[in-house]
Amino acid sequence: MAEGEEDEFERIGRYFAPLAGAGGLGLLDDAALVECGPGQRLVMTADAMVAGVHYLPEDPPDLVARKLLRVNLSDLAAMGARPLHYLLTTALPAGLGSAWIADFARGLGEDQQQFGVALLGGDSVATTGPAVLSLTAIGEVAAGMEIRRSGARPGDIVWVSGTIGDAYLGLGVLRGSYPKLAAEHRGALIARYRLPEPRVTLGPALCGIAHAMIDVSDGLLADLGHICETSGLAAIVELGSLPLSAAARAAAALEPGIAARLAGGGDDYELLFTAPAAANSAIGALGSRLGVAISAIGRIEAGAGVRLVDGDGHEVAVEAAGYRHF
Amino acid sequence: MAEGEEDEFERIGRYFAPLAGAGGLGLLDDAALVECGPGQRLVMTADAMVAGVHYLPEDPPDLVARKLLRVNLSDLAAMGARPLHYLLTTALPAGLGSAWIADFARGLGEDQQQFGVALLGGDSVATTGPAVLSLTAIGEVAAGMEIRRSGARPGDIVWVSGTIGDAYLGLGVLRGSYPKLAAEHRGALIARYRLPEPRVTLGPALCGIAHAMIDVSDGLLADLGHICETSGLAAIVELGSLPLSAAARAAAALEPGIAARLAGGGDDYELLFTAPAAANSAIGALGSRLGVAISAIGRIEAGAGVRLVDGDGHEVAVEAAGYRHF
Repeated sequence: MAEGEEDEFERIGRYFAPLAGAGGLGLLDDAALVECGPGQRLVMTADAMVAGVHYLPEDPPDLVARKLLRVNLSDLAAMGARPLHYLLTTALPAGLGSAWIADFARGLGEDQQQFGVALLGGDSVATTGPAVLSLTAIGEVAAGMEIRRSGARPGDIVWVSGTIGDAYLGLGVLRGSYPKLAAEHRGALIARYRLPEPRVTLGPALCGIAHAMIDVSDGLLADLGHICETSGLAAIVELGSLPLSAAARAAAALEPGIAARLAGGGDDYELLFTAPAAANSAIGALGSRLGVAISAIGRIEAGAGVRLVDGDGHEVAVEAAGYRHF
Repeated sequence: MAEGEEDEFERIGRYFAPLAGAGGLGLLDDAALVECGPGQRLVMTADAMVAGVHYLPEDPPDLVARKLLRVNLSDLAAMGARPLHYLLTTALPAGLGSAWIADFARGLGEDQQQFGVALLGGDSVATTGPAVLSLTAIGEVAAGMEIRRSGARPGDIVWVSGTIGDAYLGLGVLRGSYPKLAAEHRGALIARYRLPEPRVTLGPALCGIAHAMIDVSDGLLADLGHICETSGLAAIVELGSLPLSAAARAAAALEPGIAARLAGGGDDYELLFTAPAAANSAIGALGSRLGVAISAIGRIEAGAGVRLVDGDGHEVAVEAAGYRHF
């Protein structure tokens, strides 16, 4: 440890202890206690992000922190679970500096308040390489009401929340693509890439409605493929039904072939689920009540694999089967 | 991703999916479900290890995996909790190779069986830097029976399990220190550094007996300091009472000043706890029943801070207040 630098205890005390709720025991014990309500199951997930792999080193630290938390909250939502707590381990390069860590912790604090979660514990270590951030999120769901990937049934409608492909395009913009796109659209796409909107209210509200659910992280087609594999079924998706934002439509107008690629791009963190046709009106009402667009994009069939088809029912080729990080 | 290499899905499927129990849903969902028995609380902790910081890159991968799991199980034991599950995130350099990962997973599998835990989920990502391994462990304890750091009371006896300083000496041996030490002692010390023995049975057995507990990771004196700080009390430790292994006694015979340094060295993963004198015989019986040495090394007093004293009651200076990684 270089002289004058904060050590682990100081860092934890200054930046992370204020994020701990009562359950975190002020980060003052070896481990944290978690209560589990009667009739509830806890739901846990962990995701890691690496500087230069999952985010750009020059990305604002508060947004990096919020994205790290949000991708995990999205996984909880995809099980129908309500978020409660999280643990965080950070491996940070010595040269990163306290300002970065302070901004990172500030971002976590903002999102904690927004999503009603608190830091339970974790670890803060040094690395000689790029920063590696790992977060474990904990939620709860009524026992038996959790929504698995494997529950799809033939005849189910395939639905997706929000819009698809914005994060994929946002990463492209950051790398210099789509130079003719209007500044407002470029900004909107970058924002979607940097800060996903986990569907923490919609997910739990779909308990008892959705048969199968996943969040879109690898790409809409790849993630629908995970539902199909675990359910032992096939899916067909209509290209013209994919919900696109105004910015994505503008990008598609500039580069006509792009629409099909958006179904392969990742990092959307929207909820992709299947439900019986009898639930159509309930899903419509839910979307209206929560102010979230929910679009029917296809259907589940007997068989295997996912097909993307155009308005005439012809299969559309998609370059990438899933998302690959830069 | 270089051609011919396994991607994340293949790695998870081949090496990590076999480690998942029924609760892990075969790692096939967005998150894992955890049941919580009636009257129980879940206990969670997370620790990270970095190649070149917390372990040597040439250390055997199976031992790295087992140490990563064990340091977390030690944290659970220090709360009096029984281990149940864990989540794992690995950030691995692309060049690490499948053999390393296979050995790492094999080590986890061996320890899972030994300690009766299963992999619940996690993440596997690439990094351009050294490997960063982060593990979240989950245990359970009867509600209200958990043992906190802050529960020490004046007059409590201070106890420690096993022997102290072996891991500190083992790291020294790996770095070329103590060249005159017999080969068997050198091997024993290295083994203690590479593979701690978490006190998973002793910890829960101390519920209702110990007032305060912590595991020795930062160093005996520093960790006793954490108990004193959170309890608002002081402690006095007798140098001559520190339990040393045969190998540590041999090292101390070669370098007389070393005994005091062992109280500052870390990575012991023994349980350090305080209990009223009325519990002395119960603790002795517990040690006999479990086959674990448990040594009285000092006492809790009013005041603040931790003092190490010799046989005449004179304070002994200790170089490092806590453990610093290489």
